[in-house]
Amino acid sequence: MAFHIVLVEPEIPANTGNISRTCAATGTYLHLVRPLGFSTDDKTLKRAGLDYWHSVKLEYHDSFDEVKEKYAGSRFFFATTKTDKRYTDFEFRDGDFFVFGRETKGLPPEILEAHPGQTMRMPMSDAVRSLNLSNSAAIILFEALRQNDFPGLR
Amino acid sequence: MAFHIVLVEPEIPANTGNISRTCAATGTYLHLVRPLGFSTDDKTLKRAGLDYWHSVKLEYHDSFDEVKEKYAGSRFFFATTKTDKRYTDFEFRDGDFFVFGRETKGLPPEILEAHPGQTMRMPMSDAVRSLNLSNSAAIILFEALRQNDFPGLR
Repeated sequence: MAFHIVLVEPEIPANTGNISRTCAATGTYLHLVRPLGFSTDDKTLKRAGLDYWHSVKLEYHDSFDEVKEKYAGSRFFFATTKTDKRYTDFEFRDGDFFVFGRETKGLPPEILEAHPGQTMRMPMSDAVRSLNLSNSAAIILFEALRQNDFPGLR
Repeated sequence: MAFHIVLVEPEIPANTGNISRTCAATGTYLHLVRPLGFSTDDKTLKRAGLDYWHSVKLEYHDSFDEVKEKYAGSRFFFATTKTDKRYTDFEFRDGDFFVFGRETKGLPPEILEAHPGQTMRMPMSDAVRSLNLSNSAAIILFEALRQNDFPGLR
């Protein structure tokens, strides 16, 4: 039993570090789609990821298409502010992939347009453009874990 | 309708910055209990909080007792790894307070011991000591919002 988080071209090492910690804490796979905005031996990433970077189930990919081909048959869900569907409208299950775009721009339009039924937003006021990337990933992952009664976790 | 997040002596400005952004996005009050490990005009905090710091409903307090006295009658819930109760075991409602301790140490034992029925953990594996503070706050806040059907949010 495991979920998957996919970060498409993440820019800020502290965010990827925080997400790697959340993944390590929950047995979640982390997929990083290049180009990354930082080196993975960047000091900041190590500091943000604490000692957990090495205990994450981590894969690197050169494009999102590569992820989709490798995991064809899996279900993919896409976080974006550009949809009316809430992340809580979905019933998540073992093996699902949650995909997040760049901190500054979000996911590219071509990816969102290719998956119109699988986009999801987090409800928020107009005061803020979006949530922090690592917070968004944590919120959606823990909703998926909650729906599945936190499998294998104490 | 609003929830409250209380950070007791937070140490890392980027975490408080991320939490302020999440609070601004959801109309949540943010309470900071001194001493803080940073200046609130610290450049890092501004950068992490983006332009949202000024749109957060923010209060400063000199102790957690001050918060409890000011909001006597409110319900307080305490995040800690030192409990068997899950955050999803509670039914949260309007006006609830979610209290988080320092990044390195968590909440002090005297606060936890004074509220044995209101401590809550996030399920996780033993691979990781705890989640990032801003992620923990985001997960619990969004669970409370979800339970209340995201009041006032789109």
